[in-house]
Amino acid sequence: MPYLRNCWYMAAWADEIPAGGLLARRLLDEPVVLFRGSDDKVGAVSDRCPHRFAPLSRGKVVGRAITCGYHGLAFDGRGQCVVNPHGPIPRSMEIKHYPIMEAYRGIWIWMGTPAAANPRALRDLSFLDESPDTAFSKGYLFGRGNYQLYVDNILDLTHVDYLHATTLGSGAFTRTRAKVTETDDCVSVHRDCVNEAPSPLMRAIRGLSEEARVDSWNHVEWSAPAVMTLSGGNVPAGESREGPHNNMNTLNLHIVTPETSRTTHYFFATTRDFALEDAAFNERFAETRYRIFSTEDEPMINAQQESMGESDFWDLEPMLLRIDEGSVRVRRKLARMIETERETRPPEGER
Amino acid sequence: MPYLRNCWYMAAWADEIPAGGLLARRLLDEPVVLFRGSDDKVGAVSDRCPHRFAPLSRGKVVGRAITCGYHGLAFDGRGQCVVNPHGPIPRSMEIKHYPIMEAYRGIWIWMGTPAAANPRALRDLSFLDESPDTAFSKGYLFGRGNYQLYVDNILDLTHVDYLHATTLGSGAFTRTRAKVTETDDCVSVHRDCVNEAPSPLMRAIRGLSEEARVDSWNHVEWSAPAVMTLSGGNVPAGESREGPHNNMNTLNLHIVTPETSRTTHYFFATTRDFALEDAAFNERFAETRYRIFSTEDEPMINAQQESMGESDFWDLEPMLLRIDEGSVRVRRKLARMIETERETRPPEGER
Amino acid sequence: MPYLRNCWYMAAWADEIPAGGLLARRLLDEPVVLFRGSDDKVGAVSDRCPHRFAPLSRGKVVGRAITCGYHGLAFDGRGQCVVNPHGPIPRSMEIKHYPIMEAYRGIWIWMGTPAAANPRALRDLSFLDESPDTAFSKGYLFGRGNYQLYVDNILDLTHVDYLHATTLGSGAFTRTRAKVTETDDCVSVHRDCVNEAPSPLMRAIRGLSEEARVDSWNHVEWSAPAVMTLSGGNVPAGESREGPHNNMNTLNLHIVTPETSRTTHYFFATTRDFALEDAAFNERFAETRYRIFSTEDEPMINAQQESMGESDFWDLEPMLLRIDEGSVRVRRKLARMIETERETRPPEGER
Repeated sequence: MPYLRNCWYMAAWADEIPAGGLLARRLLDEPVVLFRGSDDKVGAVSDRCPHRFAPLSRGKVVGRAITCGYHGLAFDGRGQCVVNPHGPIPRSMEIKHYPIMEAYRGIWIWMGTPAAANPRALRDLSFLDESPDTAFSKGYLFGRGNYQLYVDNILDLTHVDYLHATTLGSGAFTRTRAKVTETDDCVSVHRDCVNEAPSPLMRAIRGLSEEARVDSWNHVEWSAPAVMTLSGGNVPAGESREGPHNNMNTLNLHIVTPETSRTTHYFFATTRDFALEDAAFNERFAETRYRIFSTEDEPMINAQQESMGESDFWDLEPMLLRIDEGSVRVRRKLARMIETERETRPPEGER
Repeated sequence: MPYLRNCWYMAAWADEIPAGGLLARRLLDEPVVLFRGSDDKVGAVSDRCPHRFAPLSRGKVVGRAITCGYHGLAFDGRGQCVVNPHGPIPRSMEIKHYPIMEAYRGIWIWMGTPAAANPRALRDLSFLDESPDTAFSKGYLFGRGNYQLYVDNILDLTHVDYLHATTLGSGAFTRTRAKVTETDDCVSVHRDCVNEAPSPLMRAIRGLSEEARVDSWNHVEWSAPAVMTLSGGNVPAGESREGPHNNMNTLNLHIVTPETSRTTHYFFATTRDFALEDAAFNERFAETRYRIFSTEDEPMINAQQESMGESDFWDLEPMLLRIDEGSVRVRRKLARMIETERETRPPEGER
Repeated sequence: MPYLRNCWYMAAWADEIPAGGLLARRLLDEPVVLFRGSDDKVGAVSDRCPHRFAPLSRGKVVGRAITCGYHGLAFDGRGQCVVNPHGPIPRSMEIKHYPIMEAYRGIWIWMGTPAAANPRALRDLSFLDESPDTAFSKGYLFGRGNYQLYVDNILDLTHVDYLHATTLGSGAFTRTRAKVTETDDCVSVHRDCVNEAPSPLMRAIRGLSEEARVDSWNHVEWSAPAVMTLSGGNVPAGESREGPHNNMNTLNLHIVTPETSRTTHYFFATTRDFALEDAAFNERFAETRYRIFSTEDEPMINAQQESMGESDFWDLEPMLLRIDEGSVRVRRKLARMIETERETRPPEGER
């Protein structure tokens, strides 16, 4: 399965690349090195010196360029050779570069035609910038499964009732039918759970009894290639969602970027509208989320991937259920986008 | 090399699957999950949920069914979906199941056409049930080599003189010619070693001097696919095998089941007619056997396999010796059985 | 890329194979076992018993032969079966053997046609025998890269200025143009660095100030398949190279032998003309060299190899620089030698 190329993928959290630092990361099966030059700008080029194929990431950043650690050639963020200590710079001495945007605490990379890179194509995620530090956390997880399995996981939250039964699940997801809507850019899955048992975590945070009931909702919005927001909240059953107890909303980010066909860079973040100043709560909240992702979601998705092996998802003829509507729409939409991109791509010589 | 399918393979020791428990085990290159339901019956189905391909073995046993840990679908031992929490059960929602027999302390699985499963095809191994616990031990070893290499190993016991020289070997196997006989179902290899040096272990157990001599015998019986019994005994040289010192007989079981073409599930057990009540001896005896298998046989067979790589045994043109007669007859008999099975199998549509 | 076969490869240091000892080593993708018999001669045969394919290296040396640890067959250094405990020795029971020379503290193996093995084809490395023990050290490193990458590394010493900047590098290699010469057998690369900053190691050993300048030189000689000597020295700038301070010469050996297309046996040694009796200095010197090779060269070459994957070096279209002249001449010369060997090889039936 090819990848969508002319779009922004999240390559890293911005603070993964400090001033003068570099980060080697395989993206869409290509070795990339990201580096931050003396002008504080992040560049991204092929992580392979064209001279002897040493990874540039074994070198260091000097000024605005990355210098190969083997023989000292240096390249700027446009992929141009700017230093050859052993003679004149050959005219053809350049390497593949990737347009970069730094926004919303992240580094975004354009894996398609550089000339087509369009800053307006990056989805607005400014809620990440606006959150106080004590109500924000983020993380990275290396996922041993295809990125679309991670998308499926978020698009169908009924898994929460089984995989996360001791924390986030109460059966409410399963008992409630989701409403899926699709626009040109977006697939969204919405759920309203009325008069339902709260999840173990809700009960702990709100201090609810076993018999208590809540109204809750959650809303996932996917856009290409694999950027997902997940908002959710709850009130004591029957209360107004605009009332005084509507103070349990979270707005979360789940972004997955393919490393290879079987591995994934998983970026996640969470913000909330309660306990905004409570740094200790913030830390516990982040730890709980990381534990759930790393010990429940990731191992299950890895097991799915191992079970599927090299097979294509559709070739295995999955027996789809009602709950798969959101994820199937996403898979089909993305497949169409990839197909369209392939059909409209100029022939090799014109690129 | 394909596998014989319409026969009983040993899948597990019965106590590997407690009540309400499950066991994931790859058998003949297929992912299988074995589970014991509330009726105490063991079922076996494909270890892959047909919905999203998560391994069912990451779920749990509920009642008589195994429930997927990802989205809650449940399947019984016939492979039928019996629970779909997300709507009606689709008519076609079923997975491959495997007939199971529980007998002789083991779980036996039929990897061929379920309708052909024949309980009478299971070889009588009731000696395993009849032994007192203090004269019985069993074990499992994961073998990093093709199952036929493990069969070869038992069918040619001359290896004992070299590989197990410090415990079981005395040179007697090498000095004695084996008698190989073949029937429709069975290949057997028999050896009588007359007036021979005892093995180091015999000497230790019987308290013999260096000069002592013994008459010993052993008898291996193979039947398809890879079930082998090995009986053996000894008396002081010249004494009657029915006399008062004929108290060193063991009756052993060696069963190998292919995991993949290069890995094997090795099940073994031993019973004996001496020191029947001696639990401490029993434990030492079991430990010694396990040590020999795991530190001498298994590493050698793994090294053979590594040396052979992906090559077929016959393609490598082994230089066969007299001692290979038993193992070669077994390889040829099994190959014929597999060939016959393939020729008589109904076309795909009729199965 | 095929290998040159009719030549001597270094297989081991002589002391890696003590009396009665054996060494399993894969060479040019072939499993070889080297062993030293009771006559103190080293033999080399295929590390795979022709009976059941067990590695002979899991057996032991008995007399002048190596005995299989599985069923007791024994083979001499000519590959002839000399013991079959299970019957007469079959006429055809022989395995591939490899001519061996022991010289210059090393074991040399002829991987081509045995009849063509020519002792005079081994390069004179008698300087290794002549050095006092306190001015000699040697080592072995397992290299995770193709052997030609290791050759490239020595043929282009400008890498010293970048990869070894804190020890051997001062920028002098980069600032000085090398002179490359080629003869029938040999490619050599010579450098004279005049009035240059000394390297950090030179400065430490000579006790030089930051401002001191030196004249230095180094000379690499490659011969097929991959034997390289590297001599070097220095004097305070302007002094005669025959003068009283010309006491910093080293004569070093770098030999690489392919294990597989992606892994290498790296043998190295060093001798010198100063501090000849200083065993403590000798040890520090050896440690420093080993640290540099194992923590700087080998990881960089491994990273190159990982970056290149299975691709051929030339297929990747390296952007060559002036500094590549020596290594490119070696690559081309070796490729021609391999090509010539293939063209003149007799057809399969006549070998």
